[in-house]
Amino acid sequence: MFHTQLVIDGGQTETKLRIIRQGDVSEFRLPGVQTNLPVLPQLAAAIGYAANISEAGFDVVSIGTTGLTKAEHDAGELMAMLEPGMALNLHLAHDSVSSYLGALGDRPGAVVAAGTGVVTLAVSARTTARVDGWGYIMGDAGSAYWMGQQALSAVMRAHDGRGPQTSLSGAVRDRWPDLEEAYIQLQAAPNKISVVASFGKEVSRCAATDPVAARICDLAGRELAHSAATALRRTGQAGTSQPAVACLGGVFSGAQVRAAFTAELALQIPGARLVKPAGNGLDGICLMGGLPENHPLRAMISSV
Amino acid sequence: MFHTQLVIDGGQTETKLRIIRQGDVSEFRLPGVQTNLPVLPQLAAAIGYAANISEAGFDVVSIGTTGLTKAEHDAGELMAMLEPGMALNLHLAHDSVSSYLGALGDRPGAVVAAGTGVVTLAVSARTTARVDGWGYIMGDAGSAYWMGQQALSAVMRAHDGRGPQTSLSGAVRDRWPDLEEAYIQLQAAPNKISVVASFGKEVSRCAATDPVAARICDLAGRELAHSAATALRRTGQAGTSQPAVACLGGVFSGAQVRAAFTAELALQIPGARLVKPAGNGLDGICLMGGLPENHPLRAMISSV
Repeated sequence: MFHTQLVIDGGQTETKLRIIRQGDVSEFRLPGVQTNLPVLPQLAAAIGYAANISEAGFDVVSIGTTGLTKAEHDAGELMAMLEPGMALNLHLAHDSVSSYLGALGDRPGAVVAAGTGVVTLAVSARTTARVDGWGYIMGDAGSAYWMGQQALSAVMRAHDGRGPQTSLSGAVRDRWPDLEEAYIQLQAAPNKISVVASFGKEVSRCAATDPVAARICDLAGRELAHSAATALRRTGQAGTSQPAVACLGGVFSGAQVRAAFTAELALQIPGARLVKPAGNGLDGICLMGGLPENHPLRAMISSV
Repeated sequence: MFHTQLVIDGGQTETKLRIIRQGDVSEFRLPGVQTNLPVLPQLAAAIGYAANISEAGFDVVSIGTTGLTKAEHDAGELMAMLEPGMALNLHLAHDSVSSYLGALGDRPGAVVAAGTGVVTLAVSARTTARVDGWGYIMGDAGSAYWMGQQALSAVMRAHDGRGPQTSLSGAVRDRWPDLEEAYIQLQAAPNKISVVASFGKEVSRCAATDPVAARICDLAGRELAHSAATALRRTGQAGTSQPAVACLGGVFSGAQVRAAFTAELALQIPGARLVKPAGNGLDGICLMGGLPENHPLRAMISSV
């Protein structure tokens, strides 16, 4: 067993840290990872901060993070940025790996993590497949950002006569009383990604009574299920006995999205079995160091 | 007749200026309008620049520009930012007005201007209707940005197994050899809007042989036609005898987009008649000051 362990879950909104020291567990939060800047220096700063408040280094530091480029996927390079003694061992992975481990542990299956963005990862006995997670411009189909963008577009189509009226207009007007000025203010907002994503919740809230919102939820659920089904197929689990699928993230708290997801997944992979996530990303990151040598997720974790 | 006239067409990519002085016409370009900053000071700077190189003020300054908020739609406020004598008269309007006047002059009809973004304006004898032009997040359906985003999404869907293979992947790989890193580099690019829009041209280029590209062009053409038809309906021109529709901008140079536009428009407004634009935005801006008093576009032009 490790004596002292630092676990870091680097997200876009906030970075969660967990320190485990002789059975004592403490958790705290730091600002999110800036994905438009190099990520490793930000992680090094978080480790330094944790070591300072602990007044000691760590036997093991395990990190799952957003925004890691391939060049940065290198635990050795991160280690070189640390002061001596801060970390004896270091494990570094994309947050799709930590989401997976948190939800399903070392078992096969597929995990869909849908918040502001979305990424799906499937793991079989021998291989892994990542589907989507390509960001708000090139991908993230079915994410909160995606739903919010569809909502804003639907509101403007209702406004200019191209589309049906929708109760989503109320929420958009609450923020921008003059709809025709909304896009100018939105485009100038430094936090526009999260502003757009915030309307995803509104879409779920309106879905029970508004056909436009219901349609967006339906499409989102189907996109997410298609991603899960594709990942299961690519890892050879489509025909296996009841492959496990776990759903994470705020998007799935919408009943209509969840219903559409379940229906579409059953259509594409009839045997798929929805399972409750066992834990969160931090729980998953704790497992990174202890994976069996031949586990396929090992190849997605850089260790030193 | 005016002795000296300054005409400014403020675009996102560049600002075009035309100086007319006793029959002599000269044109030049300045950097584009920064739509995330107040627009009037940028226009004042452009007027100051033109007055300096002309070594004289202007009898009339006419401006059509992108990015104008409602609060800024005020020729008096712009006049107040100028040194005395720079402009005796000032006309200020949204670039949809200048596009319209350039293409159809003071006649009724509808004009669709589709470049990086898209805006449609219809004008009848009594009223006007603007459709779309709500920017790359909330609108601009069928624009080059919209086509480029669809292309990037299709390429990533081909890459991760959710969608069919497409020859669009070649162009995206030319820019980002590692597709999985593309979104990180794109999101960090300061000029990401124009980068995404640049793929719109690629979609048109591939449409003759690639079904995925052809489908994007088809959808774009139908979105643009739906906007034109909606604008004609809102101005009461749907049932009139052969309402004129003019198309402007790079998107319409794609044969497949144009064909889909023509087919969908004929379906929605059977009598609509496609006409060649008479001139460009600068030509339209020249007409702003001379419109009849009761022309419906007058209400969209701020004059002082």
